[in-house]
Amino acid sequence: MTYGLGLFLEDGFVVTADTRSNAGVDHIATISKISAFQNADERVMVLASAGNLATTQAVVTILNQRLGQGGNPTNLFDAATMFDATKMVGSVLREVMSANAQHVQAYGDPSASFLFAGQIAGGPHRLFLIYPAGNFIEASPDTPYLQIGEVKYGKPILDRAMQFRTSLSEAVKLTLLSFDATVRSNLSVAPPFDMVIYRAGSLGPIQVRRVEMEDPYFVNIRNSYSDAIRQAVRDLAPADWPEIA
Amino acid sequence: MTYGLGLFLEDGFVVTADTRSNAGVDHIATISKISAFQNADERVMVLASAGNLATTQAVVTILNQRLGQGGNPTNLFDAATMFDATKMVGSVLREVMSANAQHVQAYGDPSASFLFAGQIAGGPHRLFLIYPAGNFIEASPDTPYLQIGEVKYGKPILDRAMQFRTSLSEAVKLTLLSFDATVRSNLSVAPPFDMVIYRAGSLGPIQVRRVEMEDPYFVNIRNSYSDAIRQAVRDLAPADWPEIA
Repeated sequence: MTYGLGLFLEDGFVVTADTRSNAGVDHIATISKISAFQNADERVMVLASAGNLATTQAVVTILNQRLGQGGNPTNLFDAATMFDATKMVGSVLREVMSANAQHVQAYGDPSASFLFAGQIAGGPHRLFLIYPAGNFIEASPDTPYLQIGEVKYGKPILDRAMQFRTSLSEAVKLTLLSFDATVRSNLSVAPPFDMVIYRAGSLGPIQVRRVEMEDPYFVNIRNSYSDAIRQAVRDLAPADWPEIA
Repeated sequence: MTYGLGLFLEDGFVVTADTRSNAGVDHIATISKISAFQNADERVMVLASAGNLATTQAVVTILNQRLGQGGNPTNLFDAATMFDATKMVGSVLREVMSANAQHVQAYGDPSASFLFAGQIAGGPHRLFLIYPAGNFIEASPDTPYLQIGEVKYGKPILDRAMQFRTSLSEAVKLTLLSFDATVRSNLSVAPPFDMVIYRAGSLGPIQVRRVEMEDPYFVNIRNSYSDAIRQAVRDLAPADWPEIA
């Protein structure tokens, strides 16, 4: 499994994925699920993958091979807008699925989904979720985060505390807390996490930050938050119900 | 969908379920999913149901019809231990499934699962989860809670703050917070919630407490906790990473 999270913010975006790849609990590996496509000062794009690893690697490899190929309809460097670039990713996903899905289905699910975020000079920063069918939806101020993979455990903290106007710094905290909630509950999602923090208008260069389980900042906020939660529960007034009197 | 939660505590148990029944989002109703079987001062048992409503209602009705029928092998009042009583519930579930499953499958999933908790005079209080196959597992000090239905959204708060030694009063708070996290994320789980709070050794009588969305205590802890979470996130130190400088 995978947990991928994209936060769409007034100030930019934060895209994060775990690195656990597994084919059964006895066959696991660490794999980066984040890829960046960038042409410094002109466009930056970040892709986070979930699903069948052969499918997602094929999509990423094809997108990389076609980068800068003039005239190629899925050359991300030719996309006029992030919407057009997202269509290209969906199109390459369909291409890979139509070549492989029928052969793979007997062994397991061949499908994949993606978070795709970026900015092209002259346009706004945007964040999309691409479904296994190659169609996609876009984040907005009303729907300021999108998730792929194991999405449920990490959702409550976002619903309580995340908004479009959340700062990048707060968004980093919420991302790490959302991942912490997920790894506590699902063995197939595991650190390290790969995280891209993008400030709107900067146009890169993008760096993928790797956050290990023992990263001092992650350890610090994970422990501080757990302590704060327990204290918050203790501080709540008890019910004055006869059953617990 | 349903969310059912059983907390197994040194001091007793708390079993709670929502009341939303749905057959599609355009066909919803409020149904109690909690049933009590009790013979005051001698035994108390609480059953929480998830899954196909026809199946769960049939199981509960059959168990009620056979209560006190001397010689009937699924008369809960004849069970010598909670383990034996849980086997009876599993057995009735298998009886209902074998009569109905093949007819129902063409229209939807006929299966059901249950939380079953109780105490019989002379024995300890115990909590079980009964699977659709009629087999079951038991809660223990190491695994002090069991869930059925939509289990994921409400799990992080329990993993952070719930233990076997948690008091009944704290367990009530954690239960309501776990349900609050779930109803914020899944439309098919909804208040009111039905809650049974049992103090070990009391042997009843058991009362089912209904907690409405506007219940003043629920409103109070829901709001206080959300405020505390947001404050806890704000209070966490920001990362000193160059990307967010």
